[in-house]
Amino acid sequence: SKHYKIAVLAGDGIGPEVMAEAERVLQVVADKFQFGISLTPALIGGAAIDATGEPLPPQTLSICQQSDAILFGSVGGPKWTGLAPDQQPERGSLLPLRKTFDLFCNLRPGQIYPAFADLSPLHPRVSSLGMDVLCVRELTGGIYFGEKGRSDTDAFDTQRYSVAEIERIAHVAFAAAQKRSNKVTSIDKANVLQTSILWRETVERVAQDYPGVTLEHMYIDNAAMQLIRSPQQFDVLLCDNLFGDILSDEIAAIAGSLGLLPSASLNGSGFGLYEPAGGSAPDIAGKGIANPIAQILSAALMLRYSFGEEDAARAIEQAVQHCLTQHIVTRDINPKSTYGTAAVGAAIVATL
Amino acid sequence: SKHYKIAVLAGDGIGPEVMAEAERVLQVVADKFQFGISLTPALIGGAAIDATGEPLPPQTLSICQQSDAILFGSVGGPKWTGLAPDQQPERGSLLPLRKTFDLFCNLRPGQIYPAFADLSPLHPRVSSLGMDVLCVRELTGGIYFGEKGRSDTDAFDTQRYSVAEIERIAHVAFAAAQKRSNKVTSIDKANVLQTSILWRETVERVAQDYPGVTLEHMYIDNAAMQLIRSPQQFDVLLCDNLFGDILSDEIAAIAGSLGLLPSASLNGSGFGLYEPAGGSAPDIAGKGIANPIAQILSAALMLRYSFGEEDAARAIEQAVQHCLTQHIVTRDINPKSTYGTAAVGAAIVATL
Ligand SMILES: CC(C)[C@H](C(=O)O)[C@@H](O)C(=O)O
Ligand SMILES: CC(C)[C@H](C(=O)O)[C@@H](O)C(=O)O
Repeated sequence: SKHYKIAVLAGDGIGPEVMAEAERVLQVVADKFQFGISLTPALIGGAAIDATGEPLPPQTLSICQQSDAILFGSVGGPKWTGLAPDQQPERGSLLPLRKTFDLFCNLRPGQIYPAFADLSPLHPRVSSLGMDVLCVRELTGGIYFGEKGRSDTDAFDTQRYSVAEIERIAHVAFAAAQKRSNKVTSIDKANVLQTSILWRETVERVAQDYPGVTLEHMYIDNAAMQLIRSPQQFDVLLCDNLFGDILSDEIAAIAGSLGLLPSASLNGSGFGLYEPAGGSAPDIAGKGIANPIAQILSAALMLRYSFGEEDAARAIEQAVQHCLTQHIVTRDINPKSTYGTAAVGAAIVATL
Repeated sequence: SKHYKIAVLAGDGIGPEVMAEAERVLQVVADKFQFGISLTPALIGGAAIDATGEPLPPQTLSICQQSDAILFGSVGGPKWTGLAPDQQPERGSLLPLRKTFDLFCNLRPGQIYPAFADLSPLHPRVSSLGMDVLCVRELTGGIYFGEKGRSDTDAFDTQRYSVAEIERIAHVAFAAAQKRSNKVTSIDKANVLQTSILWRETVERVAQDYPGVTLEHMYIDNAAMQLIRSPQQFDVLLCDNLFGDILSDEIAAIAGSLGLLPSASLNGSGFGLYEPAGGSAPDIAGKGIANPIAQILSAALMLRYSFGEEDAARAIEQAVQHCLTQHIVTRDINPKSTYGTAAVGAAIVATL
């Protein structure tokens, strides 16, 4: 019978609290849909620095390597901001994990649900039109990983993209659009960057394999503007590493519900890292009030993308929807709510 | 007596229409405040391509060189989108002008005026708190002008910054903050980029010359999010070329009134290029309905920054405010309005 090994990297801040709820949910769907799971915890981020001196200890890496997927909480906090950039929890754990496992594809859905349009910081005349976008971000190339260096008087970073790198992320975007509304908006700065010109040409060519999907190109500056003016125009956004970093957070802000947004980072063999879009929120850590939904929905994405357990994934998503419509939510969603992290987790478990 | 030579580069789309109003306003304030002006038109952008084959003809460059400032309209349109990137109107005119005249400093103010908060696509609970930011963007360095190239299989761009380049733009930001609300938010991606680490260190050092100004650092992804969630927290944003390109357009979208936003691009000797933040809007060109205010306010910035004619600049800004409060506006500001470009220009002239 099927059995999935999951590395559980809860991390810092609210990470451990929300992860506990995701683990409960996973146990329940495993029973219900008759597959086995093992959940192996490992140190990551600030917690790992405190215990071992390193944000991504070898022991953690080896647990990940022996697993079928990584469920990631969140890392970072004020305690570690004084460290050198590449020793910091976020950068020192996420970038090497992405590179080691070739997680080239980051998927970040962002929605304004009509019933929760008021969560969005957009005007009702805009938010009432809804938003349902999937940001497909290239995650292992570009200026993040190009040659860089510095002297006393200057510094440089290199953005480099190969046709092959652009092709593989473009295929993901077009395939995703086919299951959604058949539209891809490819983001670039082709009026300035050579990498963007190559990006645009390559995406045009890949598009020919997907005749049912409409392709449009948009400059990053215009996209940053259009997302605010009329987010309902977008379906799939196809972005390089840096532009995807910026726009996926802009989308999260527009959705207005960071606590609801999961994210998946995948490689070409079904392995993935799943994490909430929000951060470690040290200000509310330990209070039992953090929203567990983004972590729980990240677990659902793991079931879908890494394990092919579509029914179990959908069951979780429906249970979450049910709780949302019943107003069983933490106070980031409704300031008057008295439900805490565990209560929302319990309600989702009960619905399942 | 004082006399200022102005190169007038009206360009494409709505450029000529809105420029005509700015010229009228300049003539009036010149009389009123007793200085002389000469307005020398020159071809730029698509209009220049059609007439000479080049977006920035030598003749235009030489008129600019003989002038004290450039008043720029807008360039580009569907007719020229098929051209190679560096031949296109926007890129082929703006980038060489910036580089030739060393216009390293771009100033883009963005406001939500309480009386016009409804123009903003943000929710009233956010927009009612207002926004009053000045985006200070480095304009002649970074990934725009670094070494770039490509082969059949890959492409690269280089972002390079020197300490000297960062220092000069940082001084502009801090000096501006001293005249505003004494806060600078410096934008970077110091968790990933070496140029950002140098940026952050250098800005920290420059900040010591301005003890009255509070400095804060923010990652670009977080800034893209915070601008939407609580734009009222910002005063001066200090950005490199690429991040400033993105955030200044995001700010314009949040303000909701592209037709009201001017911009100034300056060098170290008081020479500058002044242009509306919006584009050439080919869809409404020639209809006499374009908003001339951004162009007129750009002329005001020219009087202030290049000529030191503060009283004349302020008179224009007050006349614009007067028309706004009298609801003498084009239909981008009020869809029910029947005022056209010339009527709004005439009202501003009459107020002066
Ligand atoms: C922590 C940082 C390096 C990372 C990134 O920029 O990719 C984060 O912002 C993200 O989006 O996951
Ligand atoms: C046309 C383009 C090269 C330019 C830029 O990116 O700087 C434009 O977007 C701007 O902001 O003035």
